[in-house]
Amino acid sequence: MDDIQLSIKTEVRVRFSEVDTLRIVWHGNYIKYLEDGREEFGRKYGLSYLDYINNNLLTPIVKVNIDYKYPLYYGDKAIIETTYVYTEAAKIIFDYKIFRASDNMLVATANTIQVFLNMERELLLTTPRFFEAWKRKWGFIM
Amino acid sequence: MDDIQLSIKTEVRVRFSEVDTLRIVWHGNYIKYLEDGREEFGRKYGLSYLDYINNNLLTPIVKVNIDYKYPLYYGDKAIIETTYVYTEAAKIIFDYKIFRASDNMLVATANTIQVFLNMERELLLTTPRFFEAWKRKWGFIM
Amino acid sequence: MDDIQLSIKTEVRVRFSEVDTLRIVWHGNYIKYLEDGREEFGRKYGLSYLDYINNNLLTPIVKVNIDYKYPLYYGDKAIIETTYVYTEAAKIIFDYKIFRASDNMLVATANTIQVFLNMERELLLTTPRFFEAWKRKWGFIM
Amino acid sequence: MDDIQLSIKTEVRVRFSEVDTLRIVWHGNYIKYLEDGREEFGRKYGLSYLDYINNNLLTPIVKVNIDYKYPLYYGDKAIIETTYVYTEAAKIIFDYKIFRASDNMLVATANTIQVFLNMERELLLTTPRFFEAWKRKWGFIM
Repeated sequence: MDDIQLSIKTEVRVRFSEVDTLRIVWHGNYIKYLEDGREEFGRKYGLSYLDYINNNLLTPIVKVNIDYKYPLYYGDKAIIETTYVYTEAAKIIFDYKIFRASDNMLVATANTIQVFLNMERELLLTTPRFFEAWKRKWGFIM
Repeated sequence: MDDIQLSIKTEVRVRFSEVDTLRIVWHGNYIKYLEDGREEFGRKYGLSYLDYINNNLLTPIVKVNIDYKYPLYYGDKAIIETTYVYTEAAKIIFDYKIFRASDNMLVATANTIQVFLNMERELLLTTPRFFEAWKRKWGFIM
Repeated sequence: MDDIQLSIKTEVRVRFSEVDTLRIVWHGNYIKYLEDGREEFGRKYGLSYLDYINNNLLTPIVKVNIDYKYPLYYGDKAIIETTYVYTEAAKIIFDYKIFRASDNMLVATANTIQVFLNMERELLLTTPRFFEAWKRKWGFIM
Repeated sequence: MDDIQLSIKTEVRVRFSEVDTLRIVWHGNYIKYLEDGREEFGRKYGLSYLDYINNNLLTPIVKVNIDYKYPLYYGDKAIIETTYVYTEAAKIIFDYKIFRASDNMLVATANTIQVFLNMERELLLTTPRFFEAWKRKWGFIM
């Protein structure tokens, strides 16, 4: 399974309102970029918010890590590369690489972990069938 | 009824993340300040989001006007003065004055209009009983 | 000059983080959509933030009006139509129409006014040469 | 030095605009809460953005970690406990605990790392004098 990799690249343009008084993107706005990447991944691979809802699942974020290497400036475009990270646990893990589009320089890396809740908002300790089927469909499990 | 005026003053501190590359508060962030004012008004006078919900009402904003007179800078504190504006129509109208706290200078004025929806999200063309009662309680109508 | 119209259409996708507890786009987020439209207009027609800066001009927003007609939901795409509004005054005026992309329904209209400051942040009472030249280039004045 | 601990508690109220369609605070908004805590720490202990600027220092965030344990809902108040974490490295580290105010339940923990840049935006590899003096003042070093 090591050779399977689901990934997507999403371009975002730095908005004026995202830049702070240092003329760089305010660090908190990267969380929106991660969400842009994760959502496009979801639309392409069938893991969108609405796919979860249709399967009576909520998938809140329980952990975010972001490492900022170089700043993004107003006028920059960024590429968010979102990659699904396989785990046996009842979790959804994504890795992210953010590149400056003009020269493909890596400007940030990030990681998010989501868990599964049912519609009563109870934590699911085992992977729900919907997600097992998703893993099977994409070749992560037999 | 001209002499009745319900009003509240709310202090907010400019956040680093609210300031843009011109070192002034990004104009879009004033909408959050208006909401801060309107929410504190609601908590004080019984018109909060939860009061509406408990009466099976939703009250979305249908109009916002903001006039920006002077900028707010990082480090500033602002005072939002939120005033209920009486109307016979099935609407909720607020006027806002935003002052720089250090010298009480008026830096912006604003106005919002909300309407009433029922829980099926249908527009109510007449003022709901809850709000009639609210107006009566505070002396706007007999 | 009545027949000249500079306009641009910009597509935005509603982000998860932009939707509030009513499952509709929080009204304050429309200001970002307006900025998305105005920025794309600026890139196309030479009125971007950087064009202004290169001409030693700042152009803060001094007035925003938004009329909300129908909500936008998570999953919706919106089209922002940004149109330059000619004025002789030392101001930059834009009108905006926001459509739901799926059926082209008009969901909001808006208007913004910007003024000109020099780099000392003094208000310019007459239209700066850069902007006169811009109006001439696009046929708004002779 | 183990016994020295600089810490501050900051109360924030969940804003309507911070809550997402799940009726909980959108995870990205916690970064603003961390900033609220860090800024109040800075005002109290002399480590504000303006203190840095006056010493020709910029201190961008290079790492953020957030662990979300329980959700915050609209209507909740949260307490952000911000604690300075001593390090010999040329870095500023803070730990954060976020509590639900009503019952003091721990709902999230977080950590941020900042580095020092000079006004030419060059990374400082050794701790600047200003910050050495700050550490000495508060008893972290002799």
